[in-house]
Amino acid sequence: MSGAMNFKNCGSVLVTGASRGLGLQIVDSLASGAFSPGKIIASTRNPASAQKLQELAEKHPNIHIITLDVVNQDSIEKSVQEVDHLVQEEGLNCLINNAGINVVADFHTVTAEKMIENFQTNTVAPLMITKAFQPLLKRAASRGAPGGEGSMGIHRAAVINISSALGSVELNWGKQANNFKWYPYRASKSALNMMSRCMAVDLEPDGILCMAIHPGWVRTDMGGSEASLSPEESVSSMFSVIGGLTEKDHGSFLNFTGDMLPW
Amino acid sequence: MSGAMNFKNCGSVLVTGASRGLGLQIVDSLASGAFSPGKIIASTRNPASAQKLQELAEKHPNIHIITLDVVNQDSIEKSVQEVDHLVQEEGLNCLINNAGINVVADFHTVTAEKMIENFQTNTVAPLMITKAFQPLLKRAASRGAPGGEGSMGIHRAAVINISSALGSVELNWGKQANNFKWYPYRASKSALNMMSRCMAVDLEPDGILCMAIHPGWVRTDMGGSEASLSPEESVSSMFSVIGGLTEKDHGSFLNFTGDMLPW
Repeated sequence: MSGAMNFKNCGSVLVTGASRGLGLQIVDSLASGAFSPGKIIASTRNPASAQKLQELAEKHPNIHIITLDVVNQDSIEKSVQEVDHLVQEEGLNCLINNAGINVVADFHTVTAEKMIENFQTNTVAPLMITKAFQPLLKRAASRGAPGGEGSMGIHRAAVINISSALGSVELNWGKQANNFKWYPYRASKSALNMMSRCMAVDLEPDGILCMAIHPGWVRTDMGGSEASLSPEESVSSMFSVIGGLTEKDHGSFLNFTGDMLPW
Repeated sequence: MSGAMNFKNCGSVLVTGASRGLGLQIVDSLASGAFSPGKIIASTRNPASAQKLQELAEKHPNIHIITLDVVNQDSIEKSVQEVDHLVQEEGLNCLINNAGINVVADFHTVTAEKMIENFQTNTVAPLMITKAFQPLLKRAASRGAPGGEGSMGIHRAAVINISSALGSVELNWGKQANNFKWYPYRASKSALNMMSRCMAVDLEPDGILCMAIHPGWVRTDMGGSEASLSPEESVSSMFSVIGGLTEKDHGSFLNFTGDMLPW
């Protein structure tokens, strides 16, 4: 089960960080599903070196690869023009802010530079990208659902921020805290959760849903080989959640299972 | 009531950002209390221009002014040497990470640069300062309380992070969210709360208490003239909370009233 049937009323999806890991799996699962979105826009910093993504795009003509360096404002603005050209008057239905890094450092090894580096990619980039794509998301939201306007969801427009349970301050205590002493990563994800909530407030008047989701502990380069979920399992489960999002989930922080997570 | 009697078993306090606002009031209230700490170390980026702080120090010989630019690692390391020289074998009992800025920007005006600037001062600086002062705090904690070791508190060693209710992701909804759309400030304070919690985990083996506190909405340059509390009221109330901290408050996020705040 790819879970892509959950995207059957979603015309276009933009996924950042699509060259590998979770991002590549999101594109793969979207493309191989029975109800694949009309346009799957996969962004990566350097398309020329993204071989697996290129191979996927050769098999699926609805995959469009674009260049996007998420920490570069010029690159963000250029990508908006490209996506605008692709989606035209239909706008962009779903933005998945997936690109992220883990600058591993504990209390003893953390530096100001490591904190800033992780913050730029994991917190600031999703904010600046969402800001830049707001007009395209608004355009999609204003067209409403096939069956009528009103409710929120990916049939209109949604911003999905791939966050982490490690960004939960509440859960950062006891055993979990002792196992993952990743200062830069945790700071960046807690701040991303705050930005997700701030953006939800500001995107609501346009009918654009905004939320944060934890993909689970996934066997990617970042998650490592000991992780509990395959990329397929994580993405399939997240797609069920994302496909079912309504206005009641606006501004929320959900696990890949659909359960609420504490901030 | 200055509230400084709550510091009667605390030999030394370091306050960052002491030239004005809440920081200046903290120094004033500590110095003018009946049980003033033996050493009140007030740091500011530029002591020469901190006239009010200089005037306070002339009246109270237990105030020691030191230079500290909180976003400069060399300056942090130099300040540790100065404080080390002041506190000697007694160590530092209480570090109050008070220095903070508000780079005001909403969804439309926020930039990557504004986000980074606020993050550097409000999140990264308290982390790097606490790291640098850990040996001095550990020294104080290892000496234990006059009445015996064991319990945590400012009689041994404590790190107090001046945070904000605006750093609460949970509370950032509804009316409060619509009134304070300060993206850089909110992101920096939610990340500070995460850092406070991370540091609490790592400082615990040394017996160093670590927590975050919201000072209330205070009539300072940052809070504005419409704010509900005078600096004296805020500091007096915070001192009651800080003076009463025990191991049960380790890793917590408290209001100036002593009530718990949601993350």
